Amino acid sequence: MRDALITFLQQSLGPSGVLVDGKDTERYCLDWAGARGAEPLAVARPASVDEVAQVMRYCHQHDIPVVPQGGGSGLVEGALPDHHTPELVLSLERLNRIRHLDPLNFTVSVDAGCVLQMIKDAVQAEDCFFPLALGAQGSCQIGGNISTNAGGLNVLRYGMMRQLVLGLEVVLPDGRILSDMRPLHKNNTGYDLKQLFIGAEGTLGIVTGAVLKLGPRPIHSRTALIGCPDVQSVMRLYGLARRSCCDLLSAFELIPRACIELALGAAPALKDPLDSTHPVYVLLEVGASGELDLDAMIETLFSKGLDQGLLSDGVLASSESQAAQLWQFREAMLEGQQRRGLHLRTDIALPISSLDAFHQQAEQLVERLAHDAEVIAYGHVGDGNLHFNVLPPAALSDDDKQALLHDIEEQLFELVAEFDGSISAEHGIGRVKQNAFLGNLSAPQYDIMRGLKRLLDPRGNLSAGRILPRSDGR
Amino acid sequence: MRDALITFLQQSLGPSGVLVDGKDTERYCLDWAGARGAEPLAVARPASVDEVAQVMRYCHQHDIPVVPQGGGSGLVEGALPDHHTPELVLSLERLNRIRHLDPLNFTVSVDAGCVLQMIKDAVQAEDCFFPLALGAQGSCQIGGNISTNAGGLNVLRYGMMRQLVLGLEVVLPDGRILSDMRPLHKNNTGYDLKQLFIGAEGTLGIVTGAVLKLGPRPIHSRTALIGCPDVQSVMRLYGLARRSCCDLLSAFELIPRACIELALGAAPALKDPLDSTHPVYVLLEVGASGELDLDAMIETLFSKGLDQGLLSDGVLASSESQAAQLWQFREAMLEGQQRRGLHLRTDIALPISSLDAFHQQAEQLVERLAHDAEVIAYGHVGDGNLHFNVLPPAALSDDDKQALLHDIEEQLFELVAEFDGSISAEHGIGRVKQNAFLGNLSAPQYDIMRGLKRLLDPRGNLSAGRILPRSDGR
Repeated sequence: MRDALITFLQQSLGPSGVLVDGKDTERYCLDWAGARGAEPLAVARPASVDEVAQVMRYCHQHDIPVVPQGGGSGLVEGALPDHHTPELVLSLERLNRIRHLDPLNFTVSVDAGCVLQMIKDAVQAEDCFFPLALGAQGSCQIGGNISTNAGGLNVLRYGMMRQLVLGLEVVLPDGRILSDMRPLHKNNTGYDLKQLFIGAEGTLGIVTGAVLKLGPRPIHSRTALIGCPDVQSVMRLYGLARRSCCDLLSAFELIPRACIELALGAAPALKDPLDSTHPVYVLLEVGASGELDLDAMIETLFSKGLDQGLLSDGVLASSESQAAQLWQFREAMLEGQQRRGLHLRTDIALPISSLDAFHQQAEQLVERLAHDAEVIAYGHVGDGNLHFNVLPPAALSDDDKQALLHDIEEQLFELVAEFDGSISAEHGIGRVKQNAFLGNLSAPQYDIMRGLKRLLDPRGNLSAGRILPRSDGR
Repeated sequence: MRDALITFLQQSLGPSGVLVDGKDTERYCLDWAGARGAEPLAVARPASVDEVAQVMRYCHQHDIPVVPQGGGSGLVEGALPDHHTPELVLSLERLNRIRHLDPLNFTVSVDAGCVLQMIKDAVQAEDCFFPLALGAQGSCQIGGNISTNAGGLNVLRYGMMRQLVLGLEVVLPDGRILSDMRPLHKNNTGYDLKQLFIGAEGTLGIVTGAVLKLGPRPIHSRTALIGCPDVQSVMRLYGLARRSCCDLLSAFELIPRACIELALGAAPALKDPLDSTHPVYVLLEVGASGELDLDAMIETLFSKGLDQGLLSDGVLASSESQAAQLWQFREAMLEGQQRRGLHLRTDIALPISSLDAFHQQAEQLVERLAHDAEVIAYGHVGDGNLHFNVLPPAALSDDDKQALLHDIEEQLFELVAEFDGSISAEHGIGRVKQNAFLGNLSAPQYDIMRGLKRLLDPRGNLSAGRILPRSDGR
């Protein structure tokens, strides 16, 4: 079966369209977080939508499991080849053309394999702006961003990936092409089928192209770092900022002191940003595509915040390089966290109004389970998104660390449910969060999700075992 | 069967929960545009989600067709009782509580029967803003807005209804309740089931509650009316306005001279807004939730537009009442159009960059078919949404008018397809646009839509014959 598949792929995709040797396929078995998938049947690298369709038709006819793959920056192991049943990896990396940029319509249509940064650069050259922004933007592909409904830094102002997709082209598990690539800002004609595939993590079809919604390019922006007395003040400052900054607020990030210390440790060139230390910090950004006095806007926010006792000190970047330096704290703290080795990484969403109470109870929970563990809780709190992470005591063995973090996660997720929160704000389910996810579904939710999977992938060969468990047949 | 149904409804919903007499049920058989549905089996008026579920369970067991109904302002006859098979009308009007308003989280959770204006008022009292704005907001219900993915005046800045729904509660055709009412701004856990019901026009389930996303309340706004030489200038002015107005642009409406004349005729108190007449006008609005110099923003736009020859004259409202007067033109022109009797009403979406070319070719098309018909083409052109309407020659008989408008519509829709447009930007399909809609679906699109209907409404009893044709069984 594998030999016939490889022969077929070589004939239909040409020699550069298929990789077979372990040394060539290895990089498709690793993700950004260091997780490792099984060796795949092969890696197919189609260079056109028709080639994707051919591959899928063949696999459908011959009952071959397939997993699509973008830039490999997922965090839930959804795109790694399965250990249970050998899969064909279908990489979209050679589908990487910008098809059509229409600045007056504020749209761009692209192949799924385009790297996010490439799209951002291309539209910027035409005075437009594609707002999706995340750490992996230099390597992640737009097809993966769509399939995982990516979030990131600018969700507050521009929404998740779902809000930025106007048209979609998908190859279905049976090889048929479902396409509506009309660059329309409004279209109420029947069921909006593209919504099925956005955020479905590649389990219902393979995204091969999309029409993206653009905005006007911001010509100036301001970044500020603000020291606050506690999380509650941060959340009240958020309400103030939403109003004072007039929908021009593009980021509102919570950074606890512990993260500043991690960043200072990881990047010795950084200096403590404010004269004294503060329990928590806010990193915020405003931007505008026209002339406006952004400095006055931020100064008004500062002075109102001071008056109301919500902030203690702050710095407004006076140049782009100073702004970049403030943002460096966010990158460096992730680096610092990574260096501490094994840790619990969560991606929790909460009602913004419950964030402070959740944060307190979650800290108590960790304190109870391991009083010398370290909590690193930062996030896009303007969206209610908290990465409540835990570094285990360094003295523990790896096995003990694993066991401890497992317990903490389980109890944290129970707390999340009590607070009407979500265990995955932006990372998705994949395989890593499947058990916790399934445990919280109602019967109608499960039935409809299962029905959707059966409707679109009746043989269950596409990304099997991600989000939902394998269907009974396999 | 009808008697048993009525007995059941009276027992489970109480006497005020069911209407049977023709004089009581008549208002549920008429819509805003004057279309008339058949007499229903009865009108059920459940007052709780559980009552909706009871009714649906009964109808599922007894194979009784049901059509849900909101405020009756639909334009495609989707909610009118069917002439083919008698239906039970299920009105959501008694489900009209605001469940929970959370200003810090910028969310409100509501019953589906809440009137849009009531929600807008309630959140405004807490310094928040629900942006959906449309002519029918004093009578339309939020459940209908969600089921039809309503658009309206502020889509440019805030998106369609779909973008404003964070949580949804739905009673399925079999009476089960599918609910996820967590007030979360981000949540990537599995397939996003609420997307299935938004815009499905009540064919897949009955929306009974929702969590809506709010923004900060604008504390000031500016409205301007601008005279322009032609449609092309309007579209270029749009690109300029998007940039100069920094994402604070909330409306950008195209109004041709003919509409100004219609408005002046319908509302004699109105005065021609500018000193001389212009072929086309733009009505635009900017608003902000914080202190900003909006006058300077608009003046910059005026002077840039003048420099580039995109506009000839304009007026900036200097007070709220003056702004309201400018907006009155938009209301009065609809009134004037309505008074002209039978006419073709379309709701076309196009790529913004094709709007001018489409407009020209469409005018030629009408000229060819009836050189004395009058074109009234206005719309939310910031979204590419054009209501390209046609008033037939007054001298024709009603039958001849009908036949002419039918021909014009058919050829217009062909032109729309050539321009990669949509025949329904915001009004939906219902029954009125079903034929034109089905004619343009690809086989995979049709199959998946049919599959979704079968998955969620296997007996085909809910809003049968809307969007999709009746299934084979009925």
